[in-house]
Amino acid sequence: MEASTIEQLEQELRRAIAGRRPEAVAEALRAIPGEELYRVLMSLSDNGLSVTFALLGAEGAAKVFERMDAAQAAEVLHRFSLAQAADILEEMAPDDAADVVEELDPLTAEGILVEMHQEEAQDIRELMGYRPDSAGGIMTPAYVAVSPNLTAGEVLRAVQRLAEEAETVYYVYVVDEADRLQGVLSLRDIVLKPRKTPVTEIMNRDVARVRADDDQELAARLLSERRLLAIPVVDAEDRLLGIITADDVADVLQEEATEDIERLGGSQPLEVPYMHAGVAQLVRKRVGWLLLLFVAGAYTSNVLAHFEGTLSQVVELAFFIPLLIGTGGNVGSQIVTTLVRAMAVGELGFPDVLRVIRKELVVGLFLGGVMAAATLIRAATLHVSLDVGLAVAVAALFIVLWSALVASILPLTLRRLRADPAVVSAPLITTLVDGTGLIIYFTIANLLLDVT
Amino acid sequence: MEASTIEQLEQELRRAIAGRRPEAVAEALRAIPGEELYRVLMSLSDNGLSVTFALLGAEGAAKVFERMDAAQAAEVLHRFSLAQAADILEEMAPDDAADVVEELDPLTAEGILVEMHQEEAQDIRELMGYRPDSAGGIMTPAYVAVSPNLTAGEVLRAVQRLAEEAETVYYVYVVDEADRLQGVLSLRDIVLKPRKTPVTEIMNRDVARVRADDDQELAARLLSERRLLAIPVVDAEDRLLGIITADDVADVLQEEATEDIERLGGSQPLEVPYMHAGVAQLVRKRVGWLLLLFVAGAYTSNVLAHFEGTLSQVVELAFFIPLLIGTGGNVGSQIVTTLVRAMAVGELGFPDVLRVIRKELVVGLFLGGVMAAATLIRAATLHVSLDVGLAVAVAALFIVLWSALVASILPLTLRRLRADPAVVSAPLITTLVDGTGLIIYFTIANLLLDVT
Repeated sequence: MEASTIEQLEQELRRAIAGRRPEAVAEALRAIPGEELYRVLMSLSDNGLSVTFALLGAEGAAKVFERMDAAQAAEVLHRFSLAQAADILEEMAPDDAADVVEELDPLTAEGILVEMHQEEAQDIRELMGYRPDSAGGIMTPAYVAVSPNLTAGEVLRAVQRLAEEAETVYYVYVVDEADRLQGVLSLRDIVLKPRKTPVTEIMNRDVARVRADDDQELAARLLSERRLLAIPVVDAEDRLLGIITADDVADVLQEEATEDIERLGGSQPLEVPYMHAGVAQLVRKRVGWLLLLFVAGAYTSNVLAHFEGTLSQVVELAFFIPLLIGTGGNVGSQIVTTLVRAMAVGELGFPDVLRVIRKELVVGLFLGGVMAAATLIRAATLHVSLDVGLAVAVAALFIVLWSALVASILPLTLRRLRADPAVVSAPLITTLVDGTGLIIYFTIANLLLDVT
Repeated sequence: MEASTIEQLEQELRRAIAGRRPEAVAEALRAIPGEELYRVLMSLSDNGLSVTFALLGAEGAAKVFERMDAAQAAEVLHRFSLAQAADILEEMAPDDAADVVEELDPLTAEGILVEMHQEEAQDIRELMGYRPDSAGGIMTPAYVAVSPNLTAGEVLRAVQRLAEEAETVYYVYVVDEADRLQGVLSLRDIVLKPRKTPVTEIMNRDVARVRADDDQELAARLLSERRLLAIPVVDAEDRLLGIITADDVADVLQEEATEDIERLGGSQPLEVPYMHAGVAQLVRKRVGWLLLLFVAGAYTSNVLAHFEGTLSQVVELAFFIPLLIGTGGNVGSQIVTTLVRAMAVGELGFPDVLRVIRKELVVGLFLGGVMAAATLIRAATLHVSLDVGLAVAVAALFIVLWSALVASILPLTLRRLRADPAVVSAPLITTLVDGTGLIIYFTIANLLLDVT
């Protein structure tokens, strides 16, 4: 969105607040994109914020909070009184509310929960008991469930009664007296069938479901692959605990992609939005990998020390060190990121390892040839001897091939060992092929050049 | 999923096909995850495949095809006769069918379209006219639209009549006689209100919409942020052309994340699943960046040639070259990937640039201190002189700081210039700080050591 449009919307919002016009306030807020809401709300004065709340009411405010990232919503919520915050959280979807409460500092959170109606507070406490990245952690208890003894008409009346409170009424779950999941009805089926039809005749008994302790990614995958609007979450005895709705899929997929990208960049996932991460947190998430990569790369010094004789006889060889190991690292980085992503979206698995290696070696042969030619040209422009130029070019070819081999094998093998393949980051593969690349380089130089 | 489970499902499928049991075939296929369907179907004999089709019918087969990636579905479709393929495509959602037809070779595609009913073929041809990554490219024309003159009861009857054909009946769009979008009704509202209520009283006039030529990412963002089940696609005159349903959001987000990851790894996005990319395609997507990075890194040789005097006097300095520039590259890669991702999910923009720089420089000070200490220890274990060790350690600190500065500025600035920030890949930042890192290193070495 254009910066000017945002500024216009902000001005409209401020005017609507100043004029005490509830409709205009709601409309201006609706038009502001979710990722800008935090900044806009935080820029309001305490007074402006409390007028906004008064104009929107708890329900309207809840809608605004649901559009913000949980960490950002928590920060804005901190600026309200405990009672106001409690009113807003009560009106939010319980799963979103639980996410926000988890981001509050524990004392404030407890203070707000005590202010809330007992039932809503209880829902939130239960949701907070699950790991945030589990199916239980993102489910909502606001579903509609009916007994299998009803008819379509009776279910429709139940839906009409419960519609206010439910997260979705498009799926109605059928449970027995012990709350065990028996089937699912879509509102579409309920509306299409004659009113007297028994539920057992129209319900679909083959219901995809997840366990509360399953990973949220599994729920997101099933929802997206089977094109469902919601998926039920059950306990070990198949009792219905809640549902995960399709609108959570996007958040889950974004979160998982962000974690993979941060890992591929060579740090531990931040787990919070970048602007909310403090210096200490950033240092902590990065320093471990930096040291590990340093240690993994430390033997490059030994390799160079070992070839000190060659190096001091033909100092020109040193000129090409960064370029050669850089190229090896670049090739490895291209392959590793592509493979890790293909595995993350389920296109690739360990059984494909031989096909991947074969393909990447053929690709490497072409790329290595091109890079060897480029290296030869570079050597000529530096006016080094032809011998040295040839040695560097041959080394470029072999380094590219070696890098392709290592980069094809590593991520797939890690998957096989049940480790996250994204730990083979671009920096890690670069570091791994640095030292081995030097060995290849100097071995070829020793063979081709007249070194004693 | 465990390999053994997949094998069991495959065996069940083969037994069900051999026994000509339609229900069992459908069930076995439903249980097989989407990403395995291609492999399983391709492993069947021509005869097995045609029996499967006969047992499932075109509608059942269409459901299976909708669960596959378009490129994979196209390959499987190639094994059917033109008439069978046409029957299957007719039963698929038009947007999914258009995606598959785009992956077929043009002659086969034309042959199949000619075999199809004219109306369905027309829908597919129209959808193929839009860029595949535009809103028009992923929309479906299978929506329900009504006139504003109806009542809730009349709309419900229209929904019951159209339910078979529509992609979703949960949203009903209200259009005037020129097809211009006037509002939207949810099935929930229609069911909850008395049957005599006029549409104009219950419809929501504030409808989020996208233009057919908007990017698919915008549609996905709006759908996910506003938690909609579908979003209407209109032309420049606001005429309703189609809808994009929430189940497409996951595909769009995955696709965009994949492109970003491939760019961050230093190649152009593949645009097809990795296993479908041929050698020529992989070479083409990678060679450009490799050569560009080579050229960008070529000056490292000039830097080293310039400092040849220093290098030949203190050959030990060469030992630390890969380690120092590697560390600089790693720090840059950590920062760049985190920032690019934060921008992609809308957490960060150019106005934050000063805050980002300040934060990353403070983080860099800590990390640089740690890395300087690590370098000092490494120098001691290599038994180089204390002078050299100190020079290397000081260089490590400054290289980390420099790398942090470059990596914080570049992606945000590119965004500002309306370029894709993901082109600042891990390999690019590594290459950029390689040469400048060497200049820092040798300048410090010249200052601290007694070099003539």
